[in-house]
Amino acid sequence: MQIVTRSLEFSTNGNNHIIDITNMVQDLIKNTYLKEGNVLLSAVGSTTGITTLEFEPGLVKKDVNDMFENFAPYGKNYLHNQTWGDNNGASHLRSMLTGTSLTLPFVKQKLILGTWQQIVFIDFDTRPRDRKVIVQCMGV
Amino acid sequence: MQIVTRSLEFSTNGNNHIIDITNMVQDLIKNTYLKEGNVLLSAVGSTTGITTLEFEPGLVKKDVNDMFENFAPYGKNYLHNQTWGDNNGASHLRSMLTGTSLTLPFVKQKLILGTWQQIVFIDFDTRPRDRKVIVQCMGV
Amino acid sequence: MQIVTRSLEFSTNGNNHIIDITNMVQDLIKNTYLKEGNVLLSAVGSTTGITTLEFEPGLVKKDVNDMFENFAPYGKNYLHNQTWGDNNGASHLRSMLTGTSLTLPFVKQKLILGTWQQIVFIDFDTRPRDRKVIVQCMGV
Repeated sequence: MQIVTRSLEFSTNGNNHIIDITNMVQDLIKNTYLKEGNVLLSAVGSTTGITTLEFEPGLVKKDVNDMFENFAPYGKNYLHNQTWGDNNGASHLRSMLTGTSLTLPFVKQKLILGTWQQIVFIDFDTRPRDRKVIVQCMGV
Repeated sequence: MQIVTRSLEFSTNGNNHIIDITNMVQDLIKNTYLKEGNVLLSAVGSTTGITTLEFEPGLVKKDVNDMFENFAPYGKNYLHNQTWGDNNGASHLRSMLTGTSLTLPFVKQKLILGTWQQIVFIDFDTRPRDRKVIVQCMGV
Repeated sequence: MQIVTRSLEFSTNGNNHIIDITNMVQDLIKNTYLKEGNVLLSAVGSTTGITTLEFEPGLVKKDVNDMFENFAPYGKNYLHNQTWGDNNGASHLRSMLTGTSLTLPFVKQKLILGTWQQIVFIDFDTRPRDRKVIVQCMGV
């Protein structure tokens, strides 16, 4: 068993920007030469999310944000916003529910995912950000 | 440290069908002969969910679906549905929030869970499906 | 590669009580002498949650509970409550969505988290509870 810790870095537009990171993660796995194991993805930052999603424009550009607007709308005057003179209370709430960490298995160096199942990073913050995701592979 | 990758396969009714897979996972752990470690469960498919839940009829047959209907109702005309002539936009949204991957510890070959805490697979899709869950054990 | 399984135990007030467990987890990692790896946190109990959150009073005392009240209110007469003469249907629903398990990476014995990103345990139950979280470190 071996462990390899790497990271991905990229820029986002914020505001529920959803980015397909599947290929980046798959490339990092190939580079480790590990054949069988799992990869832990952990986003650094309390207004981020990592999950799986069919990466298609209907969900990515509209439906996901519409869902979050139902219970954690960007425009609400959260106590978080009042306390800190901030405007991203919704971003924190969306992040805590979506989760910032995801572990997926790979076999023969290949991630196991469904046909329409992509790994996505979501930037819930209210402004463009530079982001980092830790990618840690364990296996043989 | 060793790693063992197996899978579970079963059929579902779709439409928020919730299945208790605790015993199946526990049996797979026993079969590996690993004593202490953790098991990664990863559902293959973008309209699935894996989480823990008290598996009792009130929650399983009614309350869980009622909750999801509040913010991701099956009957809504999502842009996903319009774009692809599909009807399962709600299934994708429920899946991305619930998560499709779960890691749990075991000690002395036994999963550590609360008294009322079961491992459940949820099929959020709008039709019956054949499903696969990857079960990967790591430990000693 | 080595594996070390420990646990944290503490008391809560229930009712969406949010507790910052970051330092407790960091201390357990230091005690293992593992340098690089990941830590699996798994809460025992079907009315618990583990996730990351900025631990500040606005979110912790008000905004998080307000969000959950939108779709899983404590006061609703769930079928779970009717079936079991219980009053914590909302607690189970909040737990299944938040998740009870979280894996985070560490390097040089230090958890990798964002500046405002803390590890929180949430007790969704409707009464004070004694709680246990399994903390399992894997690494080198």
